[in-house]
Amino acid sequence: MTDASSWVLSLSCPDRPGIVHAVSGVLADHDGNITESQQFGDPDTGLFFMRVEFASAAPRAELEAALGQLGERFEMTWRLDVAGRRMRTIVMVSKAAHCVNDLLFRERAKTLPVEIVAVVGNHPTLRDLAEFYGKPFHHIPVTPDTKPDAERALLALVEDMDAELVVLARYMQILSPELSDALRGRAINIHHSFLPSFKGARPYFQAHDRGVKLIGATAHYVTGDLDEGPIIEQDVERVDHTYTPESLTAIGADVERRALARAVRWHAEHRVLLDGHRTIVFK
Amino acid sequence: MTDASSWVLSLSCPDRPGIVHAVSGVLADHDGNITESQQFGDPDTGLFFMRVEFASAAPRAELEAALGQLGERFEMTWRLDVAGRRMRTIVMVSKAAHCVNDLLFRERAKTLPVEIVAVVGNHPTLRDLAEFYGKPFHHIPVTPDTKPDAERALLALVEDMDAELVVLARYMQILSPELSDALRGRAINIHHSFLPSFKGARPYFQAHDRGVKLIGATAHYVTGDLDEGPIIEQDVERVDHTYTPESLTAIGADVERRALARAVRWHAEHRVLLDGHRTIVFK
Amino acid sequence: MTDASSWVLSLSCPDRPGIVHAVSGVLADHDGNITESQQFGDPDTGLFFMRVEFASAAPRAELEAALGQLGERFEMTWRLDVAGRRMRTIVMVSKAAHCVNDLLFRERAKTLPVEIVAVVGNHPTLRDLAEFYGKPFHHIPVTPDTKPDAERALLALVEDMDAELVVLARYMQILSPELSDALRGRAINIHHSFLPSFKGARPYFQAHDRGVKLIGATAHYVTGDLDEGPIIEQDVERVDHTYTPESLTAIGADVERRALARAVRWHAEHRVLLDGHRTIVFK
Amino acid sequence: MTDASSWVLSLSCPDRPGIVHAVSGVLADHDGNITESQQFGDPDTGLFFMRVEFASAAPRAELEAALGQLGERFEMTWRLDVAGRRMRTIVMVSKAAHCVNDLLFRERAKTLPVEIVAVVGNHPTLRDLAEFYGKPFHHIPVTPDTKPDAERALLALVEDMDAELVVLARYMQILSPELSDALRGRAINIHHSFLPSFKGARPYFQAHDRGVKLIGATAHYVTGDLDEGPIIEQDVERVDHTYTPESLTAIGADVERRALARAVRWHAEHRVLLDGHRTIVFK
Repeated sequence: MTDASSWVLSLSCPDRPGIVHAVSGVLADHDGNITESQQFGDPDTGLFFMRVEFASAAPRAELEAALGQLGERFEMTWRLDVAGRRMRTIVMVSKAAHCVNDLLFRERAKTLPVEIVAVVGNHPTLRDLAEFYGKPFHHIPVTPDTKPDAERALLALVEDMDAELVVLARYMQILSPELSDALRGRAINIHHSFLPSFKGARPYFQAHDRGVKLIGATAHYVTGDLDEGPIIEQDVERVDHTYTPESLTAIGADVERRALARAVRWHAEHRVLLDGHRTIVFK
Repeated sequence: MTDASSWVLSLSCPDRPGIVHAVSGVLADHDGNITESQQFGDPDTGLFFMRVEFASAAPRAELEAALGQLGERFEMTWRLDVAGRRMRTIVMVSKAAHCVNDLLFRERAKTLPVEIVAVVGNHPTLRDLAEFYGKPFHHIPVTPDTKPDAERALLALVEDMDAELVVLARYMQILSPELSDALRGRAINIHHSFLPSFKGARPYFQAHDRGVKLIGATAHYVTGDLDEGPIIEQDVERVDHTYTPESLTAIGADVERRALARAVRWHAEHRVLLDGHRTIVFK
Repeated sequence: MTDASSWVLSLSCPDRPGIVHAVSGVLADHDGNITESQQFGDPDTGLFFMRVEFASAAPRAELEAALGQLGERFEMTWRLDVAGRRMRTIVMVSKAAHCVNDLLFRERAKTLPVEIVAVVGNHPTLRDLAEFYGKPFHHIPVTPDTKPDAERALLALVEDMDAELVVLARYMQILSPELSDALRGRAINIHHSFLPSFKGARPYFQAHDRGVKLIGATAHYVTGDLDEGPIIEQDVERVDHTYTPESLTAIGADVERRALARAVRWHAEHRVLLDGHRTIVFK
Repeated sequence: MTDASSWVLSLSCPDRPGIVHAVSGVLADHDGNITESQQFGDPDTGLFFMRVEFASAAPRAELEAALGQLGERFEMTWRLDVAGRRMRTIVMVSKAAHCVNDLLFRERAKTLPVEIVAVVGNHPTLRDLAEFYGKPFHHIPVTPDTKPDAERALLALVEDMDAELVVLARYMQILSPELSDALRGRAINIHHSFLPSFKGARPYFQAHDRGVKLIGATAHYVTGDLDEGPIIEQDVERVDHTYTPESLTAIGADVERRALARAVRWHAEHRVLLDGHRTIVFK
């Protein structure tokens, strides 16, 4: 438990008058100065969402005690974190390097507030890349027979490493409903398409066959319902008839890594809140 | 039949060596100077596509005779047109004005090489807009009972007006397979989504419900297979959780009119060639 | 003075702890329910900015009295408005129609919360367009000799019409420092370039000569310092070597109308706050 | 000298009738089948540009002899290369890794047709990154006194390695007019701005101060006229008032690496032709 001077508080609760006043009151009671704040009330779900960055010299325990009382009063889900703290993250990969390479590079360039504590591959292909960046690489093969064991090993690793976030960086394996549930809200996948769109195998061949003029990618939370998890970020790039499935794949890789890096950053900065099967993203 | 000094030739044929040499030979024989030219050979379909703009003082009849011989030799589909000629166009509308307003404005601003010869609405709502731009407005109501009659009236109008292009500018009616066939390759629709994507009714409510981060639109040729016609252009705009279905609709309107205007311009400039169920767009 | 149930409050003041708590306290005192709120503290200027939409059944006079006291306490600049109220707007034009046409269309389509109360042109060219949309058109010619008179006439019109916003929609005349001052913070210009960039005459010819790959436009507040006013919105579109100065101009027109429409909407919704020579835009 | 079956020919010459016919005639004489071709005639400069990919079993010497005759007849600058051949490239760096990391990764991922034969840094910072990718790293420090020696060493390296392309990947040193001339048309720089725009030091601080809403980058050929070389590619990303100079810098890094990677790919594929101080880019 650290005492810091700069904090980020994110919360959601049933919407009703007085929430902002109550939250800002707690901060004012602790000489907190708000530096950034966003709120959103969703008329569809009746939920209220708030993210606030503030400076305060108060000890964490005192802040948490006050927020705990507030949380009970408003039936709040809330989380207090040190602003800028790097989130402990495990990256899952298969053979494609573009997404994990981007995340590793951004961590080192200090433009992504994560600490990648392990890279896990179902193939050993990317061991050298992980180790170049000084990251332990775990080879956990997955076959239909070994899948339950592999998932248990992964979950054990998440717990051993105190990992807060699992990023499926072109992992190419479908998580079981059980593992999806266990990682609910803390696993992000990058989908090789502009959802809802081409599903199933070889999406870029489907895209080529259909003659699309834009290639997209979608970063979303993992749920048991494959490819239907809450969308965090989407992006596209323009293509034309001269693109082959191979060059569409290369463009797709660029779009994927871009959308994934944004989604991971926003998540790590507590900017993404779940609103049913949609997300609120306080950019 | 006009003699002009500036021409556009578009063609497609089975790919084989010597096509460009033969085409450029015909042009050289008529003192033609190529000002813009693009080619593409599709390895999937084995077809070759070419669009060439050239200046030549030769009479049209001579050019057409020479191209006719060439066309037979290479089993070509070809078309010669005066460069910059405005294509005679009928715009079909319902109640939403954003697409037709954009097309009418661009015609008048001379940034769209079409001559809109009529506006047809299944509702009378947009009569005043059409007439402000000096265009005859035809109200052809459509009910399940009258649909065959309405389509016959439309087709008669196309023929009476020598219309070369029919633009469904948020027409909201599904053309029958027969009419789709009759207008094959010369009817363009704007679809209220990023195909393949949300199909069916109220796409922006579906998009809102799904929490998408991008709103798209697709301009495509009309075929009997609804919403599956060859894609000419697609575009997107970024949205976020604060958008309601209503504001998504407004953003969607912007994306729709933009994508449709580009598709109509490219078609009118003979830049779009059919390659199976895909398009070649020589931008 | 109207009593409404839905309000928008925008404010700025020197940053210090307790502002949000105090503002939300005033709202809570009047049974206000916050539906959208954004804050930003600028560490460079030491200023705090806030925009809040809220629902409250309290009479306007009561709200204003309470906010007045608050404003004094925090040295605030604040403004309370009925949410969604259409801002009374005068559009200034010359001969180019693309921007004013877009604004008029969007007002009628109810996607832009303005009420255009007059169109003023230094040429009579666009009278018919204005009148089609039912707007009075004022022809106020400008020559070097008549410029002071013309500006007096314009300012008188602004006052007579109770206009809150003046939009220079490709007006092509430079306002005098005096008029710029008189309209400070309530006049928006669209600049035919991506500022800071090509200045002076014929920007698209300069752009063509320089071989740029992107064409941009900038919407900004008018100040005495020409083309240096606070930027509200910028946008670009991709171009290539095949574009002529003329087709660059056509693309530029699309970018201009898009950037201007966004800037006008954000201003009319009180989303734009001045922060020195920069803007805070609470999108 | 290799005999290959797939070729790319790029050329420019004074525009006049018959060029395409003559070029395609040479190809037809050697049983060449055109797979991709683009032409452009610039009315401003009176120059004609062409890029053609073709398959032919003819020996290189024969093709070159025929093209040599053709080149004399039309006063052509032309170049024949094996399609897809990787261009020998030296990357110049300073301390910032984002651009060189991207180029190295793309080379390894086979999405960039270059063979990076050396990385040269005026600081030793990026040695480990270069060596991880198996590239020799040359540390050539530059001070005002040693600059002539350093440039001689660089030029010697270019010659020793038979390097065809030099990429200034955030090299941060201004090349002398002599070196710029020696590398004319084969050195690409990435400029930390959207040219013409903020010049001089700390562009992102200038951008922040000016409150821009878009951050851009420009890839261009190096000339003696600093930052005024022919533009190959430009890109932008949207930002807002919440960005600090530091986060603008991070976004700028993304835009820079993206624009640079495209420019390098197009150059290596012989898609970029010089047209005075502009470029023709056959994408």
